[in-house]
Order: sequence, then C-alpha cells, then structure tokens
Amino acid sequence: MDGPYLAAVDIGGTKITVSIANISGILVKLYRPVQLEGDNLAVPAQVDFLVGHACEQIGIERDEITALGVSTCGPFGIRDGELVLVAPNLCGGLANERGIIPNDWTEIPLQRELSRIYNKIHIENDGISAVTAERMFGAGKGEDNVVYITWSTGIGSGAYVNGRLIRGKNGNAPHIGHIYLVDDGPRCGCGNFGDMEALASGVAIARDYKSRVTAVDMTSEDVTAEGVTGGSVTAEDVFNLFRKGDPEAKSVITNAARYFARGLVSINAILDTRVFIIGGSVFMNNRHILLPLVKEEFCKSFPALSKDVEFRPSALDSYLGDLAALCLVMPDDWGRQWQEKRPWEFAPESIVLSTNSTLK
Amino acid sequence: MDGPYLAAVDIGGTKITVSIANISGILVKLYRPVQLEGDNLAVPAQVDFLVGHACEQIGIERDEITALGVSTCGPFGIRDGELVLVAPNLCGGLANERGIIPNDWTEIPLQRELSRIYNKIHIENDGISAVTAERMFGAGKGEDNVVYITWSTGIGSGAYVNGRLIRGKNGNAPHIGHIYLVDDGPRCGCGNFGDMEALASGVAIARDYKSRVTAVDMTSEDVTAEGVTGGSVTAEDVFNLFRKGDPEAKSVITNAARYFARGLVSINAILDTRVFIIGGSVFMNNRHILLPLVKEEFCKSFPALSKDVEFRPSALDSYLGDLAALCLVMPDDWGRQWQEKRPWEFAPESIVLSTNSTLK
Repeated sequence: MDGPYLAAVDIGGTKITVSIANISGILVKLYRPVQLEGDNLAVPAQVDFLVGHACEQIGIERDEITALGVSTCGPFGIRDGELVLVAPNLCGGLANERGIIPNDWTEIPLQRELSRIYNKIHIENDGISAVTAERMFGAGKGEDNVVYITWSTGIGSGAYVNGRLIRGKNGNAPHIGHIYLVDDGPRCGCGNFGDMEALASGVAIARDYKSRVTAVDMTSEDVTAEGVTGGSVTAEDVFNLFRKGDPEAKSVITNAARYFARGLVSINAILDTRVFIIGGSVFMNNRHILLPLVKEEFCKSFPALSKDVEFRPSALDSYLGDLAALCLVMPDDWGRQWQEKRPWEFAPESIVLSTNSTLK
Repeated sequence: MDGPYLAAVDIGGTKITVSIANISGILVKLYRPVQLEGDNLAVPAQVDFLVGHACEQIGIERDEITALGVSTCGPFGIRDGELVLVAPNLCGGLANERGIIPNDWTEIPLQRELSRIYNKIHIENDGISAVTAERMFGAGKGEDNVVYITWSTGIGSGAYVNGRLIRGKNGNAPHIGHIYLVDDGPRCGCGNFGDMEALASGVAIARDYKSRVTAVDMTSEDVTAEGVTGGSVTAEDVFNLFRKGDPEAKSVITNAARYFARGLVSINAILDTRVFIIGGSVFMNNRHILLPLVKEEFCKSFPALSKDVEFRPSALDSYLGDLAALCLVMPDDWGRQWQEKRPWEFAPESIVLSTNSTLK
C-alpha cells in the first residue's frame, strides 16, 4: 500500500477514533473509549497512541503520515495563539457537576501537543468538519448556503454562508446547541438553562421521559419491559416506546422535535440558509418519526424567512466521522477522485481497543 | 459643487430618507413619511421622487447620480432573479392584522423598478448596510468578527464573520429579531410568537408596560403625568418612568434587557463574534440603564462562548442611516478620505417633506 498517508482523528465525548487512508481508500480504522484521567496532556497522548497503533496495523512508520485532520468536540479557546479545547464534557474543571469527570482540567492544549509530533495538522470543531464533508461528498454538494446539524447525544452544527465556511473568532461557529429556546427550562451540560441541547438532544429526550415516568408510575410494566428499570433509559428506548404507542413517549418526542425545529428557525433567521442537512444517531435512526414533526413546526414561523428551505438527511451518516476529519487535510485531486469512486464505502471493519491497551 | 454624486436611500417602516453626497461631504438630506397607498410600485416611485427633489435642491440632474445605495427594512425575497421586499411592515398582504396597512401588496419589486431609472444600484438590508458603515467609519474598525444590532422600534442586525459580510441566500442574514426566545409569548409583527423583537423591541417595551398598567391601575396619576392616557405609551415614556423610580417600568425594562441579552447569547453561539456594536434609539437614548443589564445577563451563559466578547455603542448613531446607504456604493479612495475627515459630521440640516408634496 503506497503513500502518501493521511490520518483522520475524531475526538468525541466518549471515544477517540483514528483512521489512516491513502488515495485508494481507508486502510485501517480503530477506536477506544476516551480516558479522562491524568493530566491535561492525556487526550493528545491517546490520539498519538492510536495513530501509532494504526500505523503498526498497516506496517508504516508514524513519520510517513503526511497530515493529521482532527475533528473534535468543542468549544475551542485560544491560548498563546494556539487552539485549546475548553469542552465541559472532557474537562472536569469546566463541568457543572463536579466529580463526574475524573479530572480537574480547564483546557486541553491539543494544537501545541499534536504539532510537536506531526508536521501538518488541521483541527476543527466536529460540526465544521462535518459540513465540510457533507458539502464535498454528501448531501450538500454544490450548495452555497448549507447548515449541517448533528442530532445525537448532544447537538452541534457547521455552516457555509455564501459559499464560505463560517468559523468565528475561535472556530466555534455555529454552536447551535447552546442557543436559548425557553426562559428557564432544564440545565445543559454547558451551564445554560433552557438551551437547544438541554431541550432536544438525545440526553434531553431520555431525561425528560425518565422524569415523567418516575413521577407518574415508577413500576410500570411497559417501562420495565423496555429496560427502563435501574435508572437507565436511553433516547432509543423512548423511540421504541413511541413506536409501540406509548403516549408519554409520544409527548416527549413531539416536544423535543418542536424545540429542535424552533432552534432551526433561529439559526435560519441568522444565516438565511437554503439547505439543512440533519445527521446524528437520534435523527438517522428515527427520521421517519422526526422529520415530519420538525418540518411542521418550522413552517409555522415567519414565512418570508422559512419558505424555500430544504431538509435533507445526512448522506454520509456512519462514514461522516472519518470523512469529516480526512477532508480537512485532503488534497484537491484526491478529493475529486473520492467524489467519483466513494472508496469510504469499502473501508475495513473498525478495530476496537479496550482502555487497557497500553499507552506507549 | 462637483461630482461624481452618490445618492443614499434609507427605507424604513415609517419614513424614506434620501441624501446626496460628493467626495467633500453630504450636500443635501431630506425625508418624508412613507406612503403605503396605491399599487406596489408606490415605494420605488417615492424613492425616485425624493432623489429627484434632492437633485433639484443642489441644482444637478438626476442622471448625474453615479450610483444609488439603498439601505432598507426587509426581509428580501428573490423574484425572477431580482430582489423584492417581502416586509410585513410595508406590505398589507403580508401583515398579520389586516386593515392597519392600507394596501394588499405581497411584495415590492424594488430592484426591478429602481434599475429601470438608475444605472448602478446596490440594495442591502439595513442591518447589513449598518454593520458595513460601522466597520468602515465607526465602532467596528479593524474587526473581523463583529455584529451590529439596532435596538429601536424593531430589532435588526448585520454581521461580519472572519472578515466577510454574511448575507445568506436572499440577503436576510442575520435577521436576529425573529429568533425564538420563549415557548409562547407575545406575537411579533412577523407572525412568530415569542421571538426577540416581540420581547425586547421598543414596541414590546411600550406594549408590555401598557398591558401591566391597564391590568393594575388604569387611572394612575403617575402614568397620566407621563402622557400614557389615551391608550398611547412609548418606550421613551417607560424609560422616563424608570428614571423616576416606577417599579413597573423597572420590571418591564429589566425583562426586555434580559431577553435582548439572551438573544445576543444565541447569535454569539452561532457566529462566535468578538464585538457587539449596539445602536438604535431605544439603546442609544438609554444605554446607561441598558448596557449593565445586558452585560449581566449575557455573562451568565456558557463561559467558553461568552467570555472575550466586547460591547460597544454605535459610534455613528444619528449619522448611521446616511452612511449605511452611502458606503454600499462608495469608491475606495472616497472611503479612505472620509475615514480621515469625517465630513458627515458637517452635513446640512434635514429637509422634511410632507406627504402632500407632489409625486412627479
């Protein structure tokens, strides 16, 4: 297998994924749960460990990697001219509830640490890299005004306006999950009360359902049948209950879809977009339920702004993480070849590493 | 007085203002209440009438005008590739309450009509043209991430992100007045319930105060002393009552400032800006009351996004309307000279025309 090789790194709140590709396609992909112990260099160290491990798998040296594309959860800050992660889901020192995240970090010097090892790196918020990938390879081709939104555990987004990616002063545009939608309302992981993520994310759906069922009937048979006992209920559980006709699940999901749509009204008022691409597990697994609800609420708003807006599901879906990170560093000729051949569809199975795998 | 001459047109919900300038400064300025009777060509006809009248005042012919910069209330739509106004405060056919606006227009073909008369025109939403002027001549000089917001009868805005003006598909970005802030809430002129304009604009402040006083004590001496009788109360009346210690006025204004700040949190989450410039009569006349309230609420939100954001009052204030329209068509060398000499500060007094002045 010939180079040049690119590494794609996807840092989320629960796992870090690394892929290596050459122009023919994705050669290896592996991931591991993110470890949040130790000092604030732990995350860049895990990235480097995974890249090294991926190189070993395909028999190349780390220095054969031409460039590293990094797509990561945010937000970002700037420290001494370099990008740092100030993400409350990674940094215990920023989290609202102390003790859940086992560290006291207030920032992660991701750019400084990775640029010590790799010559060429490009780090972007995962919403920004996702919209770049959807516009290059997926549902946003040829669109100058397009917003990608991930509807998953959390809610994030990226946007092109008039053919240009918007990044903002620290690369945090557009952090749609943290716009306000109600006056009070539930608390978000970021500390806001009543923002979009607190009202419509997968976490919000599960929490809302759980709080209602606990209040109404803790020992309901319907609920225990879906594995809601023991204090754990997932958004997917709530969608399954919806499909079985559970009225409480229907109410919770209708509410969440309504808030999601009202968030889209706000971002559309600000960006005057033409296409919303929606991805993420909450949406992609349940889009036949969610899309009609979202459209219905969206169309109730100011017609001069809401008409002529189109909604599309993510075209890259499960490939989006890899492609989002890769497209940040992919040369143009390579990009054109991939647009034709779509080699990501033939990527090998992911290798899953346990948290016990040794850091070098 | 030598040419070339530029005309600046500012179309608002209540009046149309026209100025003519050459490189030395603004030569004449006049305005007239906007007339909303007749067919949907009435507004472009009034613009042309006012330009003609302004030309007469300084003894030039209409065809000596090199270019026309038009700053107007929106939103905009596109019809046959040309910009049309789809503004509910001008078009009776779009207004929620029928009969208040004396026409049934659903759009105004502004670009088509004006380009029949003038060779070079540039039309922008008044928020977009205002941020352009503040960045060229005012409080936004040298800023790559800057949002201008007018806090007046209504609420509008314009934004640069990473040094570029954002316009969106129809030139409506960022229509901040129509982002949702609460679940239900009062109805906006646009038809939305609970958006920023319905909660924080000058109209909202007056309406909120009036509804509370009517409910509590319709014949209060304090209120009649401020001219609130007869069903009319203005936002300025409410601020005057605030200054006299009226607790109801204090509550109304504190609420409005809180919603305004929460709107800024949302636009900042989406654009990741560095500087907010705030203008408009509600803010500029009362900024010592409003700015501390806005900052206090803004800083309660997600610190990773809200820190390092600066608030500045408009530096152009009463000159902003002229400069906003002019800067759309101003040549670079002219702009540089104006940055140095600030000739707008020596503009002649406005000529006010009555609605009886004859259309040619």
